[in-house]
Amino acid sequence: MFAVEVRDHIMIAHSLPSPTFGPAQGMHGATFTVDAAFFTEALDDEGLVVDMGLATEALSNALLPLKYKNLDEVPEFKGKFTTTEFLCQHIFATLADVARKGGLGDPARLKRLRITLHESHVARAWYEGEI
Amino acid sequence: MFAVEVRDHIMIAHSLPSPTFGPAQGMHGATFTVDAAFFTEALDDEGLVVDMGLATEALSNALLPLKYKNLDEVPEFKGKFTTTEFLCQHIFATLADVARKGGLGDPARLKRLRITLHESHVARAWYEGEI
Amino acid sequence: MFAVEVRDHIMIAHSLPSPTFGPAQGMHGATFTVDAAFFTEALDDEGLVVDMGLATEALSNALLPLKYKNLDEVPEFKGKFTTTEFLCQHIFATLADVARKGGLGDPARLKRLRITLHESHVARAWYEGEI
Amino acid sequence: MFAVEVRDHIMIAHSLPSPTFGPAQGMHGATFTVDAAFFTEALDDEGLVVDMGLATEALSNALLPLKYKNLDEVPEFKGKFTTTEFLCQHIFATLADVARKGGLGDPARLKRLRITLHESHVARAWYEGEI
Amino acid sequence: MFAVEVRDHIMIAHSLPSPTFGPAQGMHGATFTVDAAFFTEALDDEGLVVDMGLATEALSNALLPLKYKNLDEVPEFKGKFTTTEFLCQHIFATLADVARKGGLGDPARLKRLRITLHESHVARAWYEGEI
Amino acid sequence: MFAVEVRDHIMIAHSLPSPTFGPAQGMHGATFTVDAAFFTEALDDEGLVVDMGLATEALSNALLPLKYKNLDEVPEFKGKFTTTEFLCQHIFATLADVARKGGLGDPARLKRLRITLHESHVARAWYEGEI
Repeated sequence: MFAVEVRDHIMIAHSLPSPTFGPAQGMHGATFTVDAAFFTEALDDEGLVVDMGLATEALSNALLPLKYKNLDEVPEFKGKFTTTEFLCQHIFATLADVARKGGLGDPARLKRLRITLHESHVARAWYEGEI
Repeated sequence: MFAVEVRDHIMIAHSLPSPTFGPAQGMHGATFTVDAAFFTEALDDEGLVVDMGLATEALSNALLPLKYKNLDEVPEFKGKFTTTEFLCQHIFATLADVARKGGLGDPARLKRLRITLHESHVARAWYEGEI
Repeated sequence: MFAVEVRDHIMIAHSLPSPTFGPAQGMHGATFTVDAAFFTEALDDEGLVVDMGLATEALSNALLPLKYKNLDEVPEFKGKFTTTEFLCQHIFATLADVARKGGLGDPARLKRLRITLHESHVARAWYEGEI
Repeated sequence: MFAVEVRDHIMIAHSLPSPTFGPAQGMHGATFTVDAAFFTEALDDEGLVVDMGLATEALSNALLPLKYKNLDEVPEFKGKFTTTEFLCQHIFATLADVARKGGLGDPARLKRLRITLHESHVARAWYEGEI
Repeated sequence: MFAVEVRDHIMIAHSLPSPTFGPAQGMHGATFTVDAAFFTEALDDEGLVVDMGLATEALSNALLPLKYKNLDEVPEFKGKFTTTEFLCQHIFATLADVARKGGLGDPARLKRLRITLHESHVARAWYEGEI
Repeated sequence: MFAVEVRDHIMIAHSLPSPTFGPAQGMHGATFTVDAAFFTEALDDEGLVVDMGLATEALSNALLPLKYKNLDEVPEFKGKFTTTEFLCQHIFATLADVARKGGLGDPARLKRLRITLHESHVARAWYEGEI
């Protein structure tokens, strides 16, 4: 299996209103370094998993609605806990949809996608699934 | 598949008394940066793989018997080569046991665990298995 | 010149309400990886710049009032732009004060302090000054 | 599953002569930080996946024909696009062959191999397969 | 002293035609991760050393003539050894000129500049001087 | 001022027999990632601070007496606390001596040297001085 992974980042505010989150219940924030890894079984005729420029642009576009946002005010997150792992799946869904619609080249080629969010130098989360 | 990974470290002395280990046969040591990744199929009601605070504390507790130790003097390692990969499995066993006993939330939720030990900027090892 | 540097982190929300900050004017947030470097001309009798355990604890204490906070609601930041470089100086002032009062050993020994805040994988800031 | 991963690097020139590669069509270059991860189901009698010294030497040998080279002039790459992912597979093939011939210990023990090439702080690729 | 540092990268080919460079005499290449650190004595009214967006854009512009280039064919490098440290000074000169002409805000504020080029995971160089 | 920095590592055992060191009083160990930075005012005729190959080899040689050692048994460390900062100065002295004797090229050119030891992902120390 081949993979190509590209990186970007977002800086967001949010609250996690449940006692489970202890000191993180109130409004705080995070820089998430975001890695998107695209998996395929075979390279195309130009030796590529995916065009890295295209992949980088698609990741940047997927992150745009989150960049410098207060996630508590993003309508589609209403009633959700915007944990690191939740955001991994959210970004996965956005990028997987782009891939399925051909935005990353032939939709039949990309098999899997993994989104990793590094929230600090000691913690990260990821979600990986089929496209 | 979702994962959450947390990081800690230990600083230990040990010897690896076999010609295989060349210059590492005698007493020397290592800083091991330790990553514990917890895997699950679905997030809980609060959007979590595992409570990161709980995971961090569990990792710290699992490492406590090794911190600042001479592994040659740890009774349960008697007769063992305490290689990086051996220690990955040892820490895996400790943390998997905590998970199975409910120390990391509902024992049915966490499916897999991966323990990675970085021994230098150019070498690391890991062990991954079902919980 | 000798130095010892220890690391911790904070996750905060804030806004930067001036057109200068473009998309960062509204409420957003950051993970700041924080490094505190202590400088001295000569080691003490035990070969130390500063007790690393003490330095780590002092840094953690200095960061406590900021951890998981919305900086817009911290009274002493009222009317200030809580930029990365501003926060470097703020944490510097807190830790330098601890050092001057003997909280990091003999106050005559530590000469300089540098506080670095990494705000993402592509940007960081620091403040360095005499203690 | 156990794994041991070792790191080395190469600094190469090449061109990628297709419009797909945009600004990278002409002669340019890259530092590739190369990680080789060896996977096995069980440790040997000395607690090893693979002798790390042997693995490091094998990786270094595998990279030797590429070190400080202009890949456009390497005969076996004629007519190929030497993309990051292509090079992952190329190095995989070299190292897997070494493993199969016993150059990394008992050929029956190592099961899988993954070669990762980091091409910058924001992009990397890998190839993983059975040995 | 305050500093703000931003990061970008370039991927170039070049040769270093002198026996001093051993295996690097022929055409090869490098990814250079480039850090530009701007120093000032006092923050401006908005708590800034320099507008990070402006600094990032200025660094990107300074690197543009080098991105994906064969440095052996860049006219102004004719007869020069384009070593890592030489390139640090070259990029320094470009960015310092931008700063002096007001491209990074009030030219009287920025005092020093440091350009760091990371050429691999085990080597880097930098040049620091007054603006 | 120009600088070139190269990296290597050592894995050692030692004890720090004073109550100051708390849990690190007994035999334990560390991986030290070691950076050696060489400073000069002007590049030589080939655009170099120092020949990187020579610098890397000199650092490796300087570390050889420490590699895989129990520092408690190294005669010249008898009665010393082999703290991270003490080792920085020790390696500095070794490499500065090599530089003064011409082992790194013209002894008049290199002005300063900085030795950094990273002891974990959260702590490091360095010593910088004139050669």
